[in-house]
Amino acid sequence: MIYEDYEIFTPGPVKMSKEILEIGSKQTPYFRNKEFSNVLLSCEKDLLELLNAPKNSRVIFLTASGTAGLESVIMNLFTKNDNAIVINGGGFGQRFVDISESYNINYKEEIVKNSNLLNISETINAKGFNTFIVNAHETSVGHLYDLDAIGKFCKENKLLNIVDAISMFVTDEIDMQKQNIDTVILSSQKGLGLPPGLTMVVLNEKAISRVQTINSHYFNFKNYLSDGVRGQTPYTPCVTIILQLEAKLKQIIKDGGIEVSIQKAKELASYFRKQIKDLPFKEYTPFMPNAMTTLTPTNDNSASDIVNILENDYKIMVCPNGGELKDKIFRVSHMGDMQKSDIDNLVNALNKI
Amino acid sequence: MIYEDYEIFTPGPVKMSKEILEIGSKQTPYFRNKEFSNVLLSCEKDLLELLNAPKNSRVIFLTASGTAGLESVIMNLFTKNDNAIVINGGGFGQRFVDISESYNINYKEEIVKNSNLLNISETINAKGFNTFIVNAHETSVGHLYDLDAIGKFCKENKLLNIVDAISMFVTDEIDMQKQNIDTVILSSQKGLGLPPGLTMVVLNEKAISRVQTINSHYFNFKNYLSDGVRGQTPYTPCVTIILQLEAKLKQIIKDGGIEVSIQKAKELASYFRKQIKDLPFKEYTPFMPNAMTTLTPTNDNSASDIVNILENDYKIMVCPNGGELKDKIFRVSHMGDMQKSDIDNLVNALNKI
Repeated sequence: MIYEDYEIFTPGPVKMSKEILEIGSKQTPYFRNKEFSNVLLSCEKDLLELLNAPKNSRVIFLTASGTAGLESVIMNLFTKNDNAIVINGGGFGQRFVDISESYNINYKEEIVKNSNLLNISETINAKGFNTFIVNAHETSVGHLYDLDAIGKFCKENKLLNIVDAISMFVTDEIDMQKQNIDTVILSSQKGLGLPPGLTMVVLNEKAISRVQTINSHYFNFKNYLSDGVRGQTPYTPCVTIILQLEAKLKQIIKDGGIEVSIQKAKELASYFRKQIKDLPFKEYTPFMPNAMTTLTPTNDNSASDIVNILENDYKIMVCPNGGELKDKIFRVSHMGDMQKSDIDNLVNALNKI
Repeated sequence: MIYEDYEIFTPGPVKMSKEILEIGSKQTPYFRNKEFSNVLLSCEKDLLELLNAPKNSRVIFLTASGTAGLESVIMNLFTKNDNAIVINGGGFGQRFVDISESYNINYKEEIVKNSNLLNISETINAKGFNTFIVNAHETSVGHLYDLDAIGKFCKENKLLNIVDAISMFVTDEIDMQKQNIDTVILSSQKGLGLPPGLTMVVLNEKAISRVQTINSHYFNFKNYLSDGVRGQTPYTPCVTIILQLEAKLKQIIKDGGIEVSIQKAKELASYFRKQIKDLPFKEYTPFMPNAMTTLTPTNDNSASDIVNILENDYKIMVCPNGGELKDKIFRVSHMGDMQKSDIDNLVNALNKI
């Protein structure tokens, strides 16, 4: 298999734990029965607990990757009378803009640079809008927005708050009640440390009341909500990944809950950032999440060359960027089953380069 | 894990081979690089070979379940000037009808009972239509249509021939050139014996020329076709299942190709059907595929009770039906990594019941 003995520091896929891999090595069970329903219901309950979701919130389990989460939310929650402020701070913000454009929803794009939106009330005018869309961690550059400030802003301006938390759930704080979040989009191959293929959309009561009747079958939230009551999905789900999700959520809760998980990611990120302090890199943004560190070489080295040397000479995969950032930055994920020893290996390699 | 030590005879998920499970136990590699592109290109090449696809055919790899394949084909290949004959012989035919209805395409539904469409030229009038849609194996009851006759009919009437081959690929014959098929829909968790989560749409040149510009991002064939040239997908694919697909396709080719695979399934199906000849069951339809056997109890036993006894007393999962067929039929799959010894276990249990 390709890259079988490589260490992986990319922001999805991420390193998975032995327990998760063991489930991947087992036969996929039949799923149209009570036993699998219980698994799905348990996943829903645990996800809502970890997000501190308000009562009567629900989870939609889509067999699909993250973009399907963004797109299905736009498809299901908007009528011609709704309109959204869409935050665009990079590639994934741009994707939300593109999808909004394709579906012809009313939106205004807010391009954000060098800000984590802490001062959002002073910089963005919400007049005439009823929805707010943001990807909490703009993964293309490693930029985390301030969900506390955004939540306060959405509450004051009565905006439905839609948060793509794909690259920050379980490594950085997200709390639906405290941060006034109505919709959360999650994927399997990030902080949860599972294989790619599962995307989850979490809706509170306010968001559920916005769900429309739409043409789409595969992304029809009404059907998912209705079948989900008995722990089923309208179409064959990615059963194995859902079994892995069940195990992962139980493990997080057993280990002390979301705070412990976030604390662990924070320590790993700090550890890495300290270890490379004397190397010729600077942090690309002051608003980094625990999930990831984005580095810029401070000497003449090309970021892209460093990525290639790590891969070819050290069997270590960090994440390159494309386009104009190709030579300027590379990204190091702290998501998944990461240990200090993994970071030591990476730091040793960086020291040698 | 649920059903860890059960034998599985459901028509998806199916029993997987050791080699496939071993890949499931490995870290998911990063995929935005040449090495993974080569994997995807190899999958495309091998799939096209096994389908005997004409030159310049292409494969779209969707991280999604089978219904997304049906729906995306309807979304991408139809304009207001196109119209389709949709075969409906059960639950999955009905799904194609429902999707056609939702997208407001011009179609006529042909309800088919007690026929494998061998005499299609005499029974269906194609005048005024340009597209034909059929699910080759109507899995809800285990009914296989005659793809040779359908292909001839489509050629004579200049119909674009769209075949959902989800539950018959690699167990029953499908040949794009010989059977004049323009579009094939496949899924991972059936004959290929992989976990659920991957759906493939195969298009020949004629079908590619029908691909429209559409609003959808996640199901936008134009983007998949364009990124696919370099072995990539627009959004994070289900990397692990694709690596499993690569291994499976190479194995089929190494073992002698699609004919050998079909022959093996045929022998297993015959073996099972012979073994149960003296038991109080009859075959539900004379048009059974190699992929599956559908049985009706000939005494007073309820099919649903038999399914439950097999599960509870023998740790064997066969497939129940719902609705009015609940007590009348149950289904036994021969897809996946099935051996005669597996069938012996099931037959022994049926003998005891």
